[in-house]
Amino acid sequence: MGVMFSHGRSSHSLSSTMRLSCTAVFFISIFFIISCHALALKPQLLGRHRIKISPDHRPLSYTTFYFDQQIDHLGFLENGTFKQRYLLNDQHWHKEGGPILFYTGNEGDIAWFCNNTGFMWDVAEELGAMLVFAEHRYYGESMPFGEESYSNAKYLNYLTSEQALADFAVLIKALKGNIPGAQKSPVIAIGGSYGGMLAAWLRMKYPSAVIGALASSAPIWQFIVPCGGFYQVVTRDFASGGVNCSSNIRRSWKAVDGISATGEGLQWLSQEFGLCSPLKSLEDVYGFKAWLQETWVNLAMVDYPYEANFLQPLPRWPVKEVCTHLRFDTGVSDKQLLHGISRAVRVYYNYSGDSPCLNTSQSATGNLGILGWFYQSCTEMVMPMCTDGINDMFEPQPWNFQAFSDECYAQFGVRPRKDWAEIVYGGGNISAHSNIIFSNGDLDPWMSGGVTKSISESLVAIMIEGGAHHLDLRYNNEYDPESVIRTRALEVQYFRKWIKQAASTL
Amino acid sequence: MGVMFSHGRSSHSLSSTMRLSCTAVFFISIFFIISCHALALKPQLLGRHRIKISPDHRPLSYTTFYFDQQIDHLGFLENGTFKQRYLLNDQHWHKEGGPILFYTGNEGDIAWFCNNTGFMWDVAEELGAMLVFAEHRYYGESMPFGEESYSNAKYLNYLTSEQALADFAVLIKALKGNIPGAQKSPVIAIGGSYGGMLAAWLRMKYPSAVIGALASSAPIWQFIVPCGGFYQVVTRDFASGGVNCSSNIRRSWKAVDGISATGEGLQWLSQEFGLCSPLKSLEDVYGFKAWLQETWVNLAMVDYPYEANFLQPLPRWPVKEVCTHLRFDTGVSDKQLLHGISRAVRVYYNYSGDSPCLNTSQSATGNLGILGWFYQSCTEMVMPMCTDGINDMFEPQPWNFQAFSDECYAQFGVRPRKDWAEIVYGGGNISAHSNIIFSNGDLDPWMSGGVTKSISESLVAIMIEGGAHHLDLRYNNEYDPESVIRTRALEVQYFRKWIKQAASTL
Repeated sequence: MGVMFSHGRSSHSLSSTMRLSCTAVFFISIFFIISCHALALKPQLLGRHRIKISPDHRPLSYTTFYFDQQIDHLGFLENGTFKQRYLLNDQHWHKEGGPILFYTGNEGDIAWFCNNTGFMWDVAEELGAMLVFAEHRYYGESMPFGEESYSNAKYLNYLTSEQALADFAVLIKALKGNIPGAQKSPVIAIGGSYGGMLAAWLRMKYPSAVIGALASSAPIWQFIVPCGGFYQVVTRDFASGGVNCSSNIRRSWKAVDGISATGEGLQWLSQEFGLCSPLKSLEDVYGFKAWLQETWVNLAMVDYPYEANFLQPLPRWPVKEVCTHLRFDTGVSDKQLLHGISRAVRVYYNYSGDSPCLNTSQSATGNLGILGWFYQSCTEMVMPMCTDGINDMFEPQPWNFQAFSDECYAQFGVRPRKDWAEIVYGGGNISAHSNIIFSNGDLDPWMSGGVTKSISESLVAIMIEGGAHHLDLRYNNEYDPESVIRTRALEVQYFRKWIKQAASTL
Repeated sequence: MGVMFSHGRSSHSLSSTMRLSCTAVFFISIFFIISCHALALKPQLLGRHRIKISPDHRPLSYTTFYFDQQIDHLGFLENGTFKQRYLLNDQHWHKEGGPILFYTGNEGDIAWFCNNTGFMWDVAEELGAMLVFAEHRYYGESMPFGEESYSNAKYLNYLTSEQALADFAVLIKALKGNIPGAQKSPVIAIGGSYGGMLAAWLRMKYPSAVIGALASSAPIWQFIVPCGGFYQVVTRDFASGGVNCSSNIRRSWKAVDGISATGEGLQWLSQEFGLCSPLKSLEDVYGFKAWLQETWVNLAMVDYPYEANFLQPLPRWPVKEVCTHLRFDTGVSDKQLLHGISRAVRVYYNYSGDSPCLNTSQSATGNLGILGWFYQSCTEMVMPMCTDGINDMFEPQPWNFQAFSDECYAQFGVRPRKDWAEIVYGGGNISAHSNIIFSNGDLDPWMSGGVTKSISESLVAIMIEGGAHHLDLRYNNEYDPESVIRTRALEVQYFRKWIKQAASTL
């Protein structure tokens, strides 16, 4: 099963179903969730120009463009081009020098990121800024080989962060060259999650293209930190979410194993959780546990202080809400415990109240975003993850690079290179760079791989107390904690400083 | 002919003979000359370990190693490796923290660069430094596909500066990881000419790998400066070399055309110059003029203040020597003028006195170094060059990108991308970087594309008065001008500063 995959316990082929891939990738990187859901947006919405409704029902106005990009920037034999999509809004832009806020798209549909990066829309007017949202190759509509892009290893060969960064740098040069008045516009890269990593790396690798970068919830050190940190943060969130919450989740895995040992137990579990597809085999039970684990992780990521619909429609502070169902003392029976778990997961899967049943393969939309991130994890984005069941609330699963590599080879015909990301992006030694803000929420599991302490005057870390995954990139909200309000103000302050710096060196 | 090629005048195929390629590349970049001659070293010498004799007859002692490098760092489908050669000397190295001076090999045999970079050998002891000379892929012995490396466009696809930089970064990580005591050794990149560009770019793109770089005679801006600068410096050198010197060379082209208009004239020219292969056609005359032009450029590059054997055995201040033969007033006849030219070129081709005849295809050794640099010029290393006959002493030849591109396509099946080098290496905007010394000699034609003014406290330009091509990288010599002695001292001072900086951030 997928959950086993990254931890090397299983030899099940990942190519057998899409669901396995999606779950599997999850344990390499939660980023995939973004793509799963991003691409679940109705396609007919995505191509439209002008006037869009954001998830927060604010009208967004942008124009969609397509830019001819080299399929291979880093070799010359493949000289074909593809259409890279980007979205542009210039309603507040001060021509002749107003800045360009450039979103470095991550592993999903750019329209979805555009709609979920309200911060840029909120600050455009005060900065007199043009907004550009550039789609990452192999996601959304930006397919180097059209519908064939994922059909074979040869076509997938140009899906790397290096190529994506080159796309961004080339696009920025073209925008500055082609838009009247933009020649002198300083460009600031902004991104969240993997997009935040790209924003930071764009500044690191192409400092002539962008004067600075805001890298929100960007775990650029996930390649080199101890593998257990991520799940420890998830666990901490649940431990703080309510009495006994994380310890009951920790106990739940054995309870599932115990109950599912009999046919009657499997039936009970399926009914208790209202599963769309009843559990029938040991393999199903593995998948069920992987799905539970994924649910807790997702909840930790999107533990926002207000009702939101990022990955799912959720109440405010959903982890607290979940934990109200998991307050049992140790004396409780397995069935009582799992009854609590089933009520808890419904907070995530059925807050709207209109799910007739719960679908443990719900992350598997079969869209390319998942597969794309999986491919990236199987090549350069190698982020070791592990659990020990002691410092975290999950079943112990060590990191097993070789098993991971073998699965990648079976799936894609490629093998990950575990040291490459560290070498190409500098590992822990990034002090030679400048003008990057690394913001992290202390609730966000990805902070485990983030830069959480300032490195220099111009490599600044901001910790957002009570912040989940890139909270600062979201729209202003009346329930925003003081910490994120301060963070956004500080970010704008740095933007102004960089813009001033850039103007003085022109 | 080759000379026409880069200036877009001719449709002669470059693939017809190796000689054409070599000459052609010359007009894109003089760097090729290095490879021509580098690879002319006897192969049996190159593989040996320990005890080598430098051109200056100083004993060099190094060990030759081969490192398994990925053929493709930037894609994952091609997962093969090749043996990258590097040379290492640690006789003066202070274990546990002594620096590593890392020569970023350019387009030729690394043993030749090693022998011609006496500076590193001269300063090793005082710095307690390990010396490493890393060969550039596709040159010397470092062939990704063995003898087949140049056989087709597919195999050549991994010959890029980006791949070469990745080789260096990966090798540095391995050296630091594998050599006991090297973990804490700060690494300084050093290179000259294209190797100097690579040194600067290694610091720019992989600042975690090297604490600083000495980029000697490195025209990193040759992609973006006006096309005429290079030949204007050559002309200036000859104008300063003696009375009427550059003006007589400027007049010589028409004299050649006039004389060669008849069969008798062709014969006279061939005899006067003692050519091994007599001129027979208009095409031969084009080639003859290209060869003359190349000769003047080479002389400007290697106009060293002492006898040296870099490209050829030459007297001290060879340009002055050449100019003693070109002092005529304007009244002189074409034949008298060309008699002077023929005596002048013999300074370059027959200083040793043992050339029975002059070979106008002498740059064409048929080795891979030439072809490699030609391929690089035909892909990313697009350095526009032109002459106008007014500001320089050459025949007017505008830069014609399209014709150049077509020739590249005919030769290699690839087309150059004229903006890529500027985008990927930052063009004129490199101020975000740090710890790079750009040294240039004011006699060196390549200074036209170099960084000749300091950009910041840590991006330092040093001009060497009376310096030809990377004079500072050569051995100390009793005839060294004060300028180069000061330059080397300053370079070592910066090295020490960087080493101190690095130690303080450990």
